Amino acid sequence: VKPLTVARDLQRRRARERTGLFLAEGVRCVEELIASPLAVQAVIISSALAETERGERLEATLRESAGARGLEIVDVTDAELGSVAGTETSQGIVAIARQPERSFENIDPFGIMLILDGVQDPGNVGTILRTAQAFGVAATIALPGTADIWNPKVVRSAMGALFSHRAFHASETETMDFLSANAIPIWTTAVGGTPVSSCLRAGSGVAIVVGNEANGVSSSIAATSTKTIGIPISGVESLNVAVATGIVLYALTTA
Amino acid sequence: VKPLTVARDLQRRRARERTGLFLAEGVRCVEELIASPLAVQAVIISSALAETERGERLEATLRESAGARGLEIVDVTDAELGSVAGTETSQGIVAIARQPERSFENIDPFGIMLILDGVQDPGNVGTILRTAQAFGVAATIALPGTADIWNPKVVRSAMGALFSHRAFHASETETMDFLSANAIPIWTTAVGGTPVSSCLRAGSGVAIVVGNEANGVSSSIAATSTKTIGIPISGVESLNVAVATGIVLYALTTA
Repeated sequence: VKPLTVARDLQRRRARERTGLFLAEGVRCVEELIASPLAVQAVIISSALAETERGERLEATLRESAGARGLEIVDVTDAELGSVAGTETSQGIVAIARQPERSFENIDPFGIMLILDGVQDPGNVGTILRTAQAFGVAATIALPGTADIWNPKVVRSAMGALFSHRAFHASETETMDFLSANAIPIWTTAVGGTPVSSCLRAGSGVAIVVGNEANGVSSSIAATSTKTIGIPISGVESLNVAVATGIVLYALTTA
Repeated sequence: VKPLTVARDLQRRRARERTGLFLAEGVRCVEELIASPLAVQAVIISSALAETERGERLEATLRESAGARGLEIVDVTDAELGSVAGTETSQGIVAIARQPERSFENIDPFGIMLILDGVQDPGNVGTILRTAQAFGVAATIALPGTADIWNPKVVRSAMGALFSHRAFHASETETMDFLSANAIPIWTTAVGGTPVSSCLRAGSGVAIVVGNEANGVSSSIAATSTKTIGIPISGVESLNVAVATGIVLYALTTA
């Protein structure tokens, strides 16, 4: 199957799940991708890439190292590349790469884990992954109901963090089994929860759960949590979930 | 001019600036709008609105109070409403309202002011306004180069905060004149700045400047600042600007 056809297909979650592949769009994202340990299968390039200096440099690097990387380079027209949906295709480059194998194995049980329980907006998920990486979170688990972390919009807004931060999808059962086997307490975030500024984790591990944009954390997860934490605010119902996650991670790592 | 034509036109910044009007799309946003002191001129409704209970309630409230509010209600087809661009039009309601007059007059000089210096993404600007309201920021000033705060996407992601939080556009000169007349120090945010956790404002006013997503704060503004503050991170180049703003506001208001 031609890379352009594969790339079009990878806009759909089902195709990403079936093939284990994903798309990285745009100059910056592909730069981050090829600097990461992830396996890149193919790069689709149009003439728009060489229109910026940075794009030209990236193209030269890719063409020189294609053999060593086992990388297929496909040249297409701007219109053909545009047919691979996403907004960054106008930069003239899309890469097809393999999703890494990630699991609960060897996660630091004394670190912070982040659990996404139904975060639906891909932009929010990507921003959260970028933030989790920035604050040294040990792993981010996406529970069912959360946007696919390999969605092109997530990949884009994660700004490369997804390529090195240990983020993966897991079921609620697997996640709960891991947390209880390692005696990691679960702290749910909610409007009106105990101010995070008064919650010290004192060097022990903790799993922070953030929930759906409209409905928050699901009741089954909230029931298993040992604490409900929050951020005191006024004048609005809630904070954006990525902003709230950033504040919680900052508060727990800065003391 | 018919409200539907006006609404279509208001997708463009120039039309919003010329008329002083803006659009609020979707059930939740219009609920927040009519609960605010802002003047609503017209509401455009399609049959999709009555398909949810919440939408039905909103429609009943609007029809009952239209006379008292001096509000024109226009019934259109779903397709006509869909032609008013934005993604929330599928909820069957768009309102046309007047941008409030806001200025530097009577801003609390002992509060926190937020200065947006070229924040370009409307989603980021809206999220920042929501966050500013949540942390009791006295006013948010959008400098030239920043997305229009009355852009429908900003209005949507501000989740109502824009209707009560004192946010407005101003020139760099006006802003600097106000800050120096009131002896308000300017703190610029930048990657690698002094950790905000060690920056106490000790009850005095301060203006926090956040910059463009790619290039940060402009050099002319940075030159006038008395301090450069930041958030210690690792593994990524920077945080999303809305997340960073949230953390800075949290850190400065929680001690």
